[in-house]
Amino acid sequence: MTTSASGIPELVERAHGGDPRALARLVSLIEDGSPRLRGVMRALAPLAGHARVIGLTGSPGAGKSTVTSALVTAYRGQGLRVAVLAIDPSSPFTGGALLGDRIRMQDHAVDRDVFIRSMASRGHLGGLAAATPQVVRALDAARFDVILIETVGVGQIEVEIASMADSVAVLVVPGMGDSIQAAKAGILEIADVFVVNKADRPQAHETVRDLRNMLALAERGPGDWKPPIVTTVATTGDGVAELTGKLDKHWSWLERSGERERRRVARAHEEVAALALGALRGRMSRLPGESALGPLAARVADGDLDPYAAADELLGALSGSQ
Amino acid sequence: MTTSASGIPELVERAHGGDPRALARLVSLIEDGSPRLRGVMRALAPLAGHARVIGLTGSPGAGKSTVTSALVTAYRGQGLRVAVLAIDPSSPFTGGALLGDRIRMQDHAVDRDVFIRSMASRGHLGGLAAATPQVVRALDAARFDVILIETVGVGQIEVEIASMADSVAVLVVPGMGDSIQAAKAGILEIADVFVVNKADRPQAHETVRDLRNMLALAERGPGDWKPPIVTTVATTGDGVAELTGKLDKHWSWLERSGERERRRVARAHEEVAALALGALRGRMSRLPGESALGPLAARVADGDLDPYAAADELLGALSGSQ
Repeated sequence: MTTSASGIPELVERAHGGDPRALARLVSLIEDGSPRLRGVMRALAPLAGHARVIGLTGSPGAGKSTVTSALVTAYRGQGLRVAVLAIDPSSPFTGGALLGDRIRMQDHAVDRDVFIRSMASRGHLGGLAAATPQVVRALDAARFDVILIETVGVGQIEVEIASMADSVAVLVVPGMGDSIQAAKAGILEIADVFVVNKADRPQAHETVRDLRNMLALAERGPGDWKPPIVTTVATTGDGVAELTGKLDKHWSWLERSGERERRRVARAHEEVAALALGALRGRMSRLPGESALGPLAARVADGDLDPYAAADELLGALSGSQ
Repeated sequence: MTTSASGIPELVERAHGGDPRALARLVSLIEDGSPRLRGVMRALAPLAGHARVIGLTGSPGAGKSTVTSALVTAYRGQGLRVAVLAIDPSSPFTGGALLGDRIRMQDHAVDRDVFIRSMASRGHLGGLAAATPQVVRALDAARFDVILIETVGVGQIEVEIASMADSVAVLVVPGMGDSIQAAKAGILEIADVFVVNKADRPQAHETVRDLRNMLALAERGPGDWKPPIVTTVATTGDGVAELTGKLDKHWSWLERSGERERRRVARAHEEVAALALGALRGRMSRLPGESALGPLAARVADGDLDPYAAADELLGALSGSQ
């Protein structure tokens, strides 16, 4: 199927009406960084803004796909339409998603009210930081009530993406010292709910205690959200109802505190900045002559020029070219 | 110790002469994004360009610190001066490094020819992508022969940082399916040497076989480097001599193939672009009126404006402000 520029409003209309093939096509246009994205985004803008976005993150092996699948089942039980976006930023080269994990999601494959998509960034202007909110907007416009964004790992990009969600659940596996260390290092600040999954393991109690001690040290004001710790065995469904309950409480708090609006603006902020910086980066590489990025980088590598002087020259050439 | 602007050339001179305190101070200036960095970089530029930069990466628990420590011992045995830069990008918020890991490095703490530093990015213009090559330049100017950059995890930033090295060693733990999956997804392309550490574990043989099969599928030209697989037990030193041997072979190949120069230019390329984009990002946020990033993001969040139109308006305001 090819899509002419004039076909975009129709495609968006069909996705909005619930056609999964039209939605899949829109997501592909976003993922591939199609030149038609401007038209797509113009058509999507007024249709989105209703979905609740939940981020799930944690170390490899924490059981993110199993928890995601259990959440899909739980929200479907409430009659809600659910979309899952699995982000794999670990591959800037191949764009390969961890498809093995996706196989576990096939319980939901025949349900028209569930949409599952793995995504890596391939040549998208602004990378995942811009592509993710665009895909969220498409899913939102396609009238999904809940959008689950699943990210692998706890790197800076994963944290950035998790920060785009309304609520962030951080998964921790009992007995994995590394998880707690990672939690200490960077995840603490973004977690709205902690999930100790595989809670039937002997070290679960200890992990919950470690997390509780860690949370006790965090400074919080009176109206601030205090992240709860939920224990789950996602493979059996144990604790999943408690998890959705805590996520509901967080959702109410977001509304009440004004934080929900703040997070939505922050998401748009990152998206617009990433698009603008992506465009500027492209211009930098295309500048003619000795002030382009390539020749300047060669001089810096040779020690002829320091990197700040090179950046200044680049910025000067950029503003002169406009 | 405070450093006046006029003290920079002296500080650089002392670091170049081998004073570890002067070097530590330079690294702190870089890490903190000091306004004096321009002067530091101007003074460092002509002094660097001699060190060999080796990146080590892999999943948490792969034994990166132990392998790093074993490599330090091996290179010290060859009479080389060694610097270790441990990057922890997992915390954009606290800037906390995983200090527990560093404790294992204390064998080398009293050796003046070993310099060890953990680094996180705190407010550095351009983030770790710009700060890392700057610290490498400082270590290089301080006449370290080998600079080991250790990164945690396999996210996009980690891959970017690893790509800044002359040689990249990727650590894999036997029996960790996740490691191999991560390897498949993104690490394959950046690995110059694979290290199966903890090779005394029963699944080591299987892991080596999986890696070998994976490598057999990669397309390579006749002059291309074929990443070897080394098995180590870093805690006992087993296999470490083979690892340094393979790294030496890669170093010779880099020189012979012209790839060494290409990688150095690529490193400068990323650094200059990150500095320039960081400056532009700052300008975006400081623009006056309704064309600044904040008001535009609010309109995008409300669905009044699509993100591309917002990015266009932002870029227009940016070029008008120059």
